[in-house]
Amino acid sequence: MTFGIDDLPVRDELRGKSPYGAPQLDVPVRLNTNENPYPLPEALVERIAERVREAARDLNRYPDRDAVELRTRLAAYLTDTSGHPLDVRNVWAANGSNEVIQQLLQTFGGPGRTAIGFEPSYSMHGLIARGTGTGWISGPRREDFTIDVPAAERAIAEHRPDVVFVTTPNNPTGNAVPAETVLALYEAARAAKPCMVVVDEAYVEFSHGASLLPLLDGRPNLVISRTMSKAFGAAGLRLGYLAAHPAVVDAIQLVRLPYHLSAVTQATALAALEHTDTLLKYVEQLKAERDRLVAELRAVGYEVTESDANFVQFGRFADSHETWRKILDRGVLVRDNGVPGWLRVTAGTPEENDAFLDAVREVKKEQNT
Amino acid sequence: MTFGIDDLPVRDELRGKSPYGAPQLDVPVRLNTNENPYPLPEALVERIAERVREAARDLNRYPDRDAVELRTRLAAYLTDTSGHPLDVRNVWAANGSNEVIQQLLQTFGGPGRTAIGFEPSYSMHGLIARGTGTGWISGPRREDFTIDVPAAERAIAEHRPDVVFVTTPNNPTGNAVPAETVLALYEAARAAKPCMVVVDEAYVEFSHGASLLPLLDGRPNLVISRTMSKAFGAAGLRLGYLAAHPAVVDAIQLVRLPYHLSAVTQATALAALEHTDTLLKYVEQLKAERDRLVAELRAVGYEVTESDANFVQFGRFADSHETWRKILDRGVLVRDNGVPGWLRVTAGTPEENDAFLDAVREVKKEQNT
Repeated sequence: MTFGIDDLPVRDELRGKSPYGAPQLDVPVRLNTNENPYPLPEALVERIAERVREAARDLNRYPDRDAVELRTRLAAYLTDTSGHPLDVRNVWAANGSNEVIQQLLQTFGGPGRTAIGFEPSYSMHGLIARGTGTGWISGPRREDFTIDVPAAERAIAEHRPDVVFVTTPNNPTGNAVPAETVLALYEAARAAKPCMVVVDEAYVEFSHGASLLPLLDGRPNLVISRTMSKAFGAAGLRLGYLAAHPAVVDAIQLVRLPYHLSAVTQATALAALEHTDTLLKYVEQLKAERDRLVAELRAVGYEVTESDANFVQFGRFADSHETWRKILDRGVLVRDNGVPGWLRVTAGTPEENDAFLDAVREVKKEQNT
Repeated sequence: MTFGIDDLPVRDELRGKSPYGAPQLDVPVRLNTNENPYPLPEALVERIAERVREAARDLNRYPDRDAVELRTRLAAYLTDTSGHPLDVRNVWAANGSNEVIQQLLQTFGGPGRTAIGFEPSYSMHGLIARGTGTGWISGPRREDFTIDVPAAERAIAEHRPDVVFVTTPNNPTGNAVPAETVLALYEAARAAKPCMVVVDEAYVEFSHGASLLPLLDGRPNLVISRTMSKAFGAAGLRLGYLAAHPAVVDAIQLVRLPYHLSAVTQATALAALEHTDTLLKYVEQLKAERDRLVAELRAVGYEVTESDANFVQFGRFADSHETWRKILDRGVLVRDNGVPGWLRVTAGTPEENDAFLDAVREVKKEQNT
């Protein structure tokens, strides 16, 4: 017998689990991880090399522990795009929004506390809860994947969670959550016990509607998390951030690992923020492609969940994994998120989306005969 | 009253705490955070810009989740410098050794479990324990800062910890821990209960002796953690790593945040590893300067702890904070780690060390009169 994980004293709740992560397969068209299909423009690539070269000259020193310049620029971006005024004190940044969420759960969740999410939603919320010793409560969602407010309120009143997650636009379903729903959950959660409400807006730049940032006004227990992975086309950068009352940013300092954000990450993110306008033009192209995917999938005869994200959930399938495999056989990798009857496809370039649509048309024809 | 941290539902054990971090003061000579004083050579700066430019062209995609190329190169570095053969399966990397330690505690510590360290030692071990819900046990050390093996064995037998930390060379005291001590603690800990022993070798490249990597042979519950912050002169990069049995690396996959290590971090670390030989020459210079600091401080009349690191602990002072302030008044920032009677100075460039020695000679003269 080879010595393996089970021979080590790992925590009981980790035994028999598998690591999170989409299968990474080498296929012509990869539309499975909601990446932005557009490489960064060459001018930005050069600017990154320039800013990183500058940062590398000082690499023997620890980075700015508080990432002040970066947080200032992120606050300006949020202010410019939402009209809601924010400054450096309102913003915190980390290695991907996963680390932001981990820091939030280390501060406001943890052993003896619980967090709730309305599932299906971003599965890392529950996994990071487990990783931080926070109890996880799977809250309800309607058949059409919208949040049933009375049912959600009942779940909150019953479980009295310490942290409430709302993902909007939701992943993997794609639909946005109305502001009134978030407000109702915020009130319900605060009525049940002192707690934090975390709105995960990773995909909000692709939304038909507006960001919920203005809701921060007068709500110090509300946090909005964001990422540069999607709209900024920088999944490889791992830069997540949040906006909240300054007291939330102060509280996170108690659990953040010192110097968590490297000088090269800070330099690269600053370069990307200089090119915001160009990158947001790609977002507009992707929104148009996303809308085309929704329309075409419906024309083919699929059910499609309304999408405000850079991906589309479509179905229904008696066996979604079998359909996933049939699409893969045609050279297109989509995502089976484990939502029974549904699959998720990321909006790619027009050519990638054409390849995907050709594949699903064939699959549909085959399944109809 | 302004709304502040105490108005938020932060975890009870965080209330009233302060964030970790050395004061960052703007003074001519900063010898307080054990940074390498030598900037990276210009050829390496250029190579970093080149490799990051290449990585930036693919930045819209997620990074290699498993950092295979980087882990392979780190394994080769460890093999080359220790003679102990290791490969990619033995090595894991994260954003600083702090994140490595956090992942280890999430896997093998956490709620209902405990970790022990022999203090004074690297204070982040205890802080990360707190952040992961792991109970922290402060183990004993002798007056001369060596580990008293029988006393340590008794503490282990009494508390039956799940994780044992041994820092060698120890920070902030500077002394190395003999292999026999680590072996004795490993046996004692394993006899008490199934557990992991983590040897933190952040400063080992500066040691007069050898790395403990060969001890990994036949000891799957042993982990050795390392960093590129010190010997590689790359504190700004935040690249920590560990070497262990492949089962340990597998187990960490259950708690690591997916895609935790950015493409720019991986690219920069790979560039630095290409210049290992040059960087290790700076290490030799720093070792000579460290030995000079030890000799000169003794000549001035201070007590000095034996150092195998790139820093030196010196004393004793009736009021170490007052002495810290007097040295600062002379333009040199050293570290008051809270070890009563002692201060710590990082080995800088010859000029920086001269400035420090001039300052402490003056302070000594003043304190003697």
